[in-house]
Amino acid sequence: MQKVNLKQKLDLIAEHWSPKIVGALNGQHVKLVKVRGQFVWHSHEHEDELFLVLGGRLAIRLRDREIVLEAGEFFIVPRGVEHMPVADDEAHVLLFEPASTVNTGDVRDARTIVEPEWL
Amino acid sequence: MQKVNLKQKLDLIAEHWSPKIVGALNGQHVKLVKVRGQFVWHSHEHEDELFLVLGGRLAIRLRDREIVLEAGEFFIVPRGVEHMPVADDEAHVLLFEPASTVNTGDVRDARTIVEPEWL
Repeated sequence: MQKVNLKQKLDLIAEHWSPKIVGALNGQHVKLVKVRGQFVWHSHEHEDELFLVLGGRLAIRLRDREIVLEAGEFFIVPRGVEHMPVADDEAHVLLFEPASTVNTGDVRDARTIVEPEWL
Repeated sequence: MQKVNLKQKLDLIAEHWSPKIVGALNGQHVKLVKVRGQFVWHSHEHEDELFLVLGGRLAIRLRDREIVLEAGEFFIVPRGVEHMPVADDEAHVLLFEPASTVNTGDVRDARTIVEPEWL
């Protein structure tokens, strides 16, 4: 039962593509992540995933188009929809998603984090 | 499947204490609300509720203390915990909560909105 300051939490994150949990409610997690470069194409079978950009610019590539998000914009990727996040420069992103969500979805690679840490 | 710009959506809201839905995922809603003044003491029996301040300052009064949130800060009120949001000046707030959540919780008054509109 403490408030969370997003900027203070972001300052604690060094690594890219490594989401950290900053809140939990109703079986969902609020996570923060710093991203740069291309992630991996993946989908989440059972989880819709919200990306809210806090700083920088994030592109969410879908198979048929690309959504470009600036700070203050969000996009929800529905379950089952393949997507690949891409950021040319570092971007800071808040995620809302079920606690069960694995960052790389149905794919396993070097950046897969099955149990993210709390910040 | 469209991105949402928070500022553009906020610009469409005139009334205070009237949350509007801007996103839905995993049985949860993302809502935006403009607030000013005191709300009503209430609690939600089955829903944890996240308040993220986008602009201005929001105090969340609890029975034993007060949490003051500035822009970029959030607080999660666990289910069953009595709370009263208060804003001396207008504040803009993003809510993340189950789709079943009623703004006044266990209380019914003139500001109760059982089925919020989509923006």
